[in-house]
Amino acid sequence: MAAGAGVGRSTAARTLGGYGYVSPDVRERVLAAAERIGYRANALARSMSTGISNTIGVIVADIANPFFGGVVRGISDAAHARGYDTLVLSTNEKLPEEVAATNVLIDKRVDGIIVASAALDAASAAHFEQARDHGIPVVLVDRAVPGLELDAVVIDNRAAARDAVERLIAAGHRRIGFVWGPPVQERPRLRREMVDIAARNLWTDGERLQGYLDALDDEGIVFDADLVMVGEKVEENARVEVRQMLALTDPPTALFCTETDAMTGSLQALRDAGLRVATDVSMIGFDDSSWARVLEPPLTMIEQPMQALGTRAAEVLFGAIDGQEPSVELHTLETRFIERASVAPPSDR
Amino acid sequence: MAAGAGVGRSTAARTLGGYGYVSPDVRERVLAAAERIGYRANALARSMSTGISNTIGVIVADIANPFFGGVVRGISDAAHARGYDTLVLSTNEKLPEEVAATNVLIDKRVDGIIVASAALDAASAAHFEQARDHGIPVVLVDRAVPGLELDAVVIDNRAAARDAVERLIAAGHRRIGFVWGPPVQERPRLRREMVDIAARNLWTDGERLQGYLDALDDEGIVFDADLVMVGEKVEENARVEVRQMLALTDPPTALFCTETDAMTGSLQALRDAGLRVATDVSMIGFDDSSWARVLEPPLTMIEQPMQALGTRAAEVLFGAIDGQEPSVELHTLETRFIERASVAPPSDR
Repeated sequence: MAAGAGVGRSTAARTLGGYGYVSPDVRERVLAAAERIGYRANALARSMSTGISNTIGVIVADIANPFFGGVVRGISDAAHARGYDTLVLSTNEKLPEEVAATNVLIDKRVDGIIVASAALDAASAAHFEQARDHGIPVVLVDRAVPGLELDAVVIDNRAAARDAVERLIAAGHRRIGFVWGPPVQERPRLRREMVDIAARNLWTDGERLQGYLDALDDEGIVFDADLVMVGEKVEENARVEVRQMLALTDPPTALFCTETDAMTGSLQALRDAGLRVATDVSMIGFDDSSWARVLEPPLTMIEQPMQALGTRAAEVLFGAIDGQEPSVELHTLETRFIERASVAPPSDR
Repeated sequence: MAAGAGVGRSTAARTLGGYGYVSPDVRERVLAAAERIGYRANALARSMSTGISNTIGVIVADIANPFFGGVVRGISDAAHARGYDTLVLSTNEKLPEEVAATNVLIDKRVDGIIVASAALDAASAAHFEQARDHGIPVVLVDRAVPGLELDAVVIDNRAAARDAVERLIAAGHRRIGFVWGPPVQERPRLRREMVDIAARNLWTDGERLQGYLDALDDEGIVFDADLVMVGEKVEENARVEVRQMLALTDPPTALFCTETDAMTGSLQALRDAGLRVATDVSMIGFDDSSWARVLEPPLTMIEQPMQALGTRAAEVLFGAIDGQEPSVELHTLETRFIERASVAPPSDR
């Protein structure tokens, strides 16, 4: 590397170690040479020599969810290519933990923050103002927060859900179950109530429910509250709720599942009822997985571009770190519909 | 909370906000009351009032791997219960990135570090010495590093693998494929070479390979290099390697898969070859998943206690943070063998 920069070994060491005198011109050449060969001065040395910490912070709802794992991977790979390290905090989908996590990142002097926020509106997002008061740009990922003037990198959940449900309708289905729905205990009976609840739901989940309602409207199918799961968003509850749907006099002939555990819970309910995927009940799921390909039949899924969401969020953040004016845009990435074999015409069982 | 601590509201605010005078006795009562009701002062305020940062750092190989997601969840829940926030860094299984991540955490003044290390021996683990020189205790999780005097919280990979392979042998199998094996290009032909390579492999993977060899030895089954996958540890390579195994004159009648993607790659190879799980080829996998339950037949799996590994590692770390003498122990947690329906007697195909 010293050779690559045209300087002596000890000069290169001084530059990368952040001690002694190095002229700006030489520093630049050494760092450029270092970058070419993939060398990264450690954050401590870099921070001593440049006065910046070279870290960004990421706040996600649940680090054990493979979706966020993929997003974080995209962010940290992009950050790494820029010579930044990525610090990740998980909030268990709780706003007070998100506020605490933001304060930790301010305290640790990160250069920027990317967050999948649990905030439902701008009023509950004052912590981002605080970050910006400290000169730390904030970019939202996965969820926009209505009313909040921040860049957000998302997919169009409503359009993706609507498209999937329309495909089920096109295959002949008119009784379509929605798993999972709003986390309320009492099942809202009216379409109007369901729309209100969707609007106050977590952004992604609410949008997907709206997309489902859109598709029913388009095709003139009357909304039936009994076909929307309610209650806790966990696999076991999906199983129980779908079992109830399947026991209705007029049961669903298809299910649209908005999360991995909604899908596996629904598959368990089908097995409990002795029903087969496609032959008896059609299914479309959200968040493709290598497992979905090896099921029999393989499952038709909507794939979110997890890593690309992370990469784009990092690009937008680094734009802000580099001093570009924030654009306050909603950056929408495409989902991919992966047709496999879990959708068939409705059966007459 | 003020009432719970028997102090006035403004005293409680001073204590939790870290400003103004509060006697040590009162501070203790307020913090105890706060803990009882789950209140957490933000890290910034706490750090101002107590001089400690209240964060721990976690370094994992791949944050997108659900196994590490579960471990991190266990750590951060335990840390949260102690009023600590958890900063996570991912290294893509690369030692230079692990060194950089350790330096970032030293720079950010965390109170302790938990790491799933990519270091193969003590000689390549000097960065942990550096952390300890800064008074930051380090605990290993998932992998021990031979020769390194640090507490490590692990499972007994060798015993778990041996037990699984012995169960396949007990079901009548003598031709058992091992997926995935060492990441070498050239397939080692001799058992002795394979043992040497296992010893220089990543700790968990090497131990699982040893357990496989142990089981063959116990039952007097001659080692056959053609039944051990080599090359890159990715799903597509597992598929290619298993397809080759299945095309042998004397193909395997059972497969032992040490990772999720090894399992799904193997399942794809079976489908490519028109073979069914259990009926044609028996399978046991590592790392249970909700998907494994909904496959037909449901898969027999070894479950690692992911969250418990994280919880225990956090307990050991907090012991060291609280000033207990490090014990330098290998803390071994139990795996759980989940018998489902993917193992049957060998077929005569």
